[in-house]
Amino acid sequence: MIQADTSRAMQTALDAAEEAARHGEVPVGAVVLDADGQVLAVARNRVEELHDGSAHAELLAMREAAQKLGSPRLTGCTLVVTLEPCPMCAGAIVHFRCERVVFGAYDPKGGGVDHGPRLFERPTCLHRPEIIGGVREREAAEQLRSFFRRLRTA
Amino acid sequence: MIQADTSRAMQTALDAAEEAARHGEVPVGAVVLDADGQVLAVARNRVEELHDGSAHAELLAMREAAQKLGSPRLTGCTLVVTLEPCPMCAGAIVHFRCERVVFGAYDPKGGGVDHGPRLFERPTCLHRPEIIGGVREREAAEQLRSFFRRLRTA
Repeated sequence: MIQADTSRAMQTALDAAEEAARHGEVPVGAVVLDADGQVLAVARNRVEELHDGSAHAELLAMREAAQKLGSPRLTGCTLVVTLEPCPMCAGAIVHFRCERVVFGAYDPKGGGVDHGPRLFERPTCLHRPEIIGGVREREAAEQLRSFFRRLRTA
Repeated sequence: MIQADTSRAMQTALDAAEEAARHGEVPVGAVVLDADGQVLAVARNRVEELHDGSAHAELLAMREAAQKLGSPRLTGCTLVVTLEPCPMCAGAIVHFRCERVVFGAYDPKGGGVDHGPRLFERPTCLHRPEIIGGVREREAAEQLRSFFRRLRTA
């Protein structure tokens, strides 16, 4: 069970992911909410557009949110993202001290939270956010499947 | 044994790390060399200055280098960095497809290459760079020790 503001944020993230797909980017979208549930940042994958292998939706959203707060720490904030974060983004979540992560689809191949290195479960991990996975999972996964299906038939 | 251009790049990275310390940032510096050993980017830790928890030297240097190449992929490039990359930066090295990583000090607590999740050794890792660790290890480690010593006595 997630709160109404988180649920709205996931819809915003799904819309941002669709926008990514329209630009030929892997469809992932992300939103950062502050401690009161207000939207601080919305971002989508922009790897190809920005020529930046690190321009994942999560990283862009957290950087923008931190700019707004004027601090490198996202204390009390929630990251809402359509796909399980990869190890890079999971590592960034630790550095930003993001308090809660809500994600859509699970990513057995590329994920770093519930799969692969499971970064937050490691004894050396300095910060363990609350994690809620599988929110709007079916739609989030379908966006990705549909994008890669179109790529293969293009 | 490393090549002369890599050795020069490590001195540049150590100088950038000193510059970080002078700005009150954890002293880590990084350089990206292209396939011909030419410097594409030099960066230092700027987490506090930029209000960006992801503004590690490696990530900033790789982003700048990719901008210069006009591609999110750093094919043939070498990342030279004073400290073993953390999981976030190791994940970014994979996304940027950086070919070689040369680092100075080992980081048993925060590293993600030879410690912790050992990202490049995982079966799901899509790209495995060549790794050379421990270059100018003593100086790189001493920069960090000296920084944290000053912090504790400040």
